[in-house]
Amino acid sequence: MAEDFGEWYRRMLSENVLVDDRYEIKGMLVYRGNAMYMIRQMTGYLEGMLEADGHEPTLFPVLIPENLLMREAEHIAGFEDQVYWVTHAGGNKLERKLALRPTSETCMYPMFALWTRTFQDLPIKVHQTVAVYRCETKQTRPLIRSREFYWNEGHTAFATREEALSNIETIKGIYTKLINGLLCLPVQVNVRPQWDKFPGAEYTIAFETLMPDGRTLQVATVHNLGQHFSRVFNIEFDDEKGEKHHAWQTSYGPGFGRLLAATISVHGDGKGMVLPPRIAPTQVVIIPVIFKDADKAHVMEYVRGLEESLKREGFRVKVDASDGRPGAKYYLWEGRGVPLRIEVGPREVKENKVLLVRRDTGGKMSVGRDAIDLKALFSQIESDMRVKAAKRFDDRLYDAKTLDEFKELVVKGIVTVGWCGRDECAKPIEEVGTILTVLEDSGKCVACGKGGKMLRVARTY
Amino acid sequence: MAEDFGEWYRRMLSENVLVDDRYEIKGMLVYRGNAMYMIRQMTGYLEGMLEADGHEPTLFPVLIPENLLMREAEHIAGFEDQVYWVTHAGGNKLERKLALRPTSETCMYPMFALWTRTFQDLPIKVHQTVAVYRCETKQTRPLIRSREFYWNEGHTAFATREEALSNIETIKGIYTKLINGLLCLPVQVNVRPQWDKFPGAEYTIAFETLMPDGRTLQVATVHNLGQHFSRVFNIEFDDEKGEKHHAWQTSYGPGFGRLLAATISVHGDGKGMVLPPRIAPTQVVIIPVIFKDADKAHVMEYVRGLEESLKREGFRVKVDASDGRPGAKYYLWEGRGVPLRIEVGPREVKENKVLLVRRDTGGKMSVGRDAIDLKALFSQIESDMRVKAAKRFDDRLYDAKTLDEFKELVVKGIVTVGWCGRDECAKPIEEVGTILTVLEDSGKCVACGKGGKMLRVARTY
Repeated sequence: MAEDFGEWYRRMLSENVLVDDRYEIKGMLVYRGNAMYMIRQMTGYLEGMLEADGHEPTLFPVLIPENLLMREAEHIAGFEDQVYWVTHAGGNKLERKLALRPTSETCMYPMFALWTRTFQDLPIKVHQTVAVYRCETKQTRPLIRSREFYWNEGHTAFATREEALSNIETIKGIYTKLINGLLCLPVQVNVRPQWDKFPGAEYTIAFETLMPDGRTLQVATVHNLGQHFSRVFNIEFDDEKGEKHHAWQTSYGPGFGRLLAATISVHGDGKGMVLPPRIAPTQVVIIPVIFKDADKAHVMEYVRGLEESLKREGFRVKVDASDGRPGAKYYLWEGRGVPLRIEVGPREVKENKVLLVRRDTGGKMSVGRDAIDLKALFSQIESDMRVKAAKRFDDRLYDAKTLDEFKELVVKGIVTVGWCGRDECAKPIEEVGTILTVLEDSGKCVACGKGGKMLRVARTY
Repeated sequence: MAEDFGEWYRRMLSENVLVDDRYEIKGMLVYRGNAMYMIRQMTGYLEGMLEADGHEPTLFPVLIPENLLMREAEHIAGFEDQVYWVTHAGGNKLERKLALRPTSETCMYPMFALWTRTFQDLPIKVHQTVAVYRCETKQTRPLIRSREFYWNEGHTAFATREEALSNIETIKGIYTKLINGLLCLPVQVNVRPQWDKFPGAEYTIAFETLMPDGRTLQVATVHNLGQHFSRVFNIEFDDEKGEKHHAWQTSYGPGFGRLLAATISVHGDGKGMVLPPRIAPTQVVIIPVIFKDADKAHVMEYVRGLEESLKREGFRVKVDASDGRPGAKYYLWEGRGVPLRIEVGPREVKENKVLLVRRDTGGKMSVGRDAIDLKALFSQIESDMRVKAAKRFDDRLYDAKTLDEFKELVVKGIVTVGWCGRDECAKPIEEVGTILTVLEDSGKCVACGKGGKMLRVARTY
C-alpha cells in the first residue's frame, strides 16, 4: 500500500462500491451506496452538532446571478476561472448569466440583508448540505479533487466581532469532533498565509490531515470574513441606540468527499479498508464456521438469534451464510473494512460463546454470548484507531535545518523550517512544497540564514 | 381561508419561516429551517422504505452532456424547452453544452449500461434525493411550481417485464405510506392519458391530492419505461443461456416541495397550519399558565421536569416561558401548527396532572402526569387527520351528466364525465379542466352523447 498509494486508493474505491468515475464528464463522480452511507453518517452527525449550536438548516438556490457573484472584488477574482455558467434556458439566451454556486456567500448574503434590520435579528447562523461546482484546472482525483463536490457550508452574521470569533472557536470544536472524533483522523489546524486565504476573507483556518504518501489533505476550512461581505451586500443593523452597523461574518465547511478519502486512506492497510465503527455501513459481520453438515442447523440457529439481538440493539449486522470457505469470507469482509467479525462454530454454540475479531488490530477475543458489549468495544476500537493514526501522523512531522534536509523530508510529511519572509527565499521552498502556515515562532531562514519566522510546509493534494 | 386560498397560503409560508421567495432568480426559492425540517422527516422516512426494499442510495452528477440528454427522442422533445444549459466554464466556451438535470434518466442509464453484463447484475434499484431544474414557462408558485425543486428519484433495471410491474406496485405502496401515512393526505392514483405521460415512458401513474381551492396537485409520479431507454442506452444483459436482452425499466419520484405545500394546505385552517405529528418541527409546546408570582417557581419546576421527560422519550418539545398572556401564546403556537399544547397551571401541579389540547380538533383532555401517552395520542391524531381530510376529499368528487353541470362542478373538485374519444369533444372539456385519466368504465360523451369511456377531469396546479 505504501509503495503505490495511488493504485491502492483506486482499488479501494472500485472494490468497495464507493464511487464510479466513468461518467462522461471528467471530474464528476457517481457516488454509490457505501460512499453515500458513510457520507450520510457524517452529515447527520455534523448537522446535529450545528443545529444544537443554533444553526438553522436551509437550502439556497444553486444558481447565482452574475451581478451578485461579481459584487465582492477579491471573491470573484478568486473564483472566476472556475465558475460554470448557465447562459441559456430552453432555446433562449438568458438576460444575465447564472453561475453554478462555487460556494454560497454571494447567494446567501443578499438574503441575510433582507433578514437583518436591528440587532434583535442577529445572530444569523445557517447551514446547508449541498454540492458545489468548480471547474478545476488541476488534475482531478476521485473524492479528492472533483468538479462537483459535496460539502456542508455554514454561514453567519453577528452584531460584534467578538461573537464572530467565539463562533469560530465553536466551529473548530465541532469540526474536530467530526474529523478526529467520528472519523478518528488526526488533524492539524493551520491559519493559512494571507496569500492563500479564501477570496474575500480576513483570514482562513484550515484543517488538514496527512495521506499515506506524505501529502497533506485539506478537509475543512473556516473563514473570518470580517465586514468584507456585509459591506458589499449591505447587511446592516440598528443597535440599541438606533445607530447603523455592518454585521460581522464567518463561513465554513468540510468536504465530505475528502473526509471519506482521508478516512479510507489513513486507516486502511494492505488488506483493504478499516472503517471507524460509527460510519461503517456494516459494523458487524457474523460468519458461521461449519465444517460438518450435522452442525449446520444449530450453528445457524445460534447465528440468527445473535443477528436478531444485535440488530435490535441498533447495530448494523450482516450474516455471511454464503457457500465458500470461512477463510475466503474473512478476506472479503476484512477488505471491506467491517470493524468487527464474529465467528460462530459448533464449539461456540456448545459453550454459549462467540469469537470476536477486530479489523483494526486483528485481535481475537472469545467471550460469553451474554458478555458481548459492542458499544464499549466500538468505543475502544475508535480510541485505538485514533491513537494509531495519531502516531503515524506525528512520526511524519519534521524539522529541517538546511535546505537539503528540507527537500529530503518534505516528500515524507509536514516540515517546519525557518523563513526570513522574502519572496526570493520562499522560492526554493515552494518549488517542492506548499506553505501551510506561517507560525509565530521565530527561526533562522533555511535559504539565507537570516532571522525570521517558522513555516509549516508540505506537499499537498 | 377557503375564500382566498392564495393569500392564506402565502401568509403560511412567510409567517412560519418556511420559504423566502425574494431571491433574485424568479422561481428559485430559499428553504428555511421549518421547511427543511419537515422535508428532512419526509426524505428520511422515504429513503428508509426504499432502502429496506433494496434500493441503493446514490448521487449522480447534476450536469448531463447534450449528447446523452438528446439520445431518447421523445424524452428530449418533452424537456428541451425547459432545460438550463451550461455553456461556459471560467472564461472558456465548453466543447459541448451541459444540461442541469431536469430528471436523471439520461444521466444514470449510461452508467447502468456499464454495470450490466449478465442477469446476475440485475436488478439495479437506485435512488437519490436531489434538486432538479426546469425553466418553467408557466407562472411559478412557491413550493408548487419552482424552477429548482427537491425530490427523490428512483430508477431501476430488471431482467423481466414482470419484475418491473411488481416494482411499480411496491412503489405505489411506499408512496401511499409517505403521502397518506406520514402526511395524512388523501391521494388519488391515476394512470395519465397517453398524451400526458412522462416523455419516453410507456405510461405514467400519477398521485394527486386536492387543494382547498378545488385544484388537484400532482405530488408524485411512477413511470413504466418499458425498454425505451434500455435500447437507446444499451442496457443489455446475457440470460442464463447467454442470449442478449434489453432490461426493463421504471423510474419514479415524489416532489418534497409539493408534498409540503399539500400538507400545509389540506390540513390547515383559519388559525394557521395543522401539522402531522411525525413531521412537525415542534411536536409539543408546553405553556406555563401563571397568574400569580407566588406560583411561578413550582409551576416552572413542574414544566421543566415534564419537558425533560418528554424529550428523553424522543419527542420534540418546546416550553414557551416568555412574557405575555397565555392566550397570545395559544394563538401563536396554533398558527404554527404544533400538534399538541400542554397547559400547566397551579391546579395541574397540585393534582399532578396536565391539560392536553389538540391542534387538529381543539379537544381538551385533563390527564394524570403519569398517564401521558404521546405515542398513542399522536397516532390517534394522525388517524383523525386522515379521516377528516379524506372526507373533504371525497366530498369533492363529482359526477357530471351534462356539459353545463360539468363546468359548474369542475371549479370545485374532480369530476367524472363521459367522453367519446374524439378530439372535438375533448375541446370543451379541456377548456375548463385537465383530463387526469381515462377510466376503463364506459359512459356517454358529455359533449355529443355518443358512447365512450369515463374521464376524471379537474383544474390542476
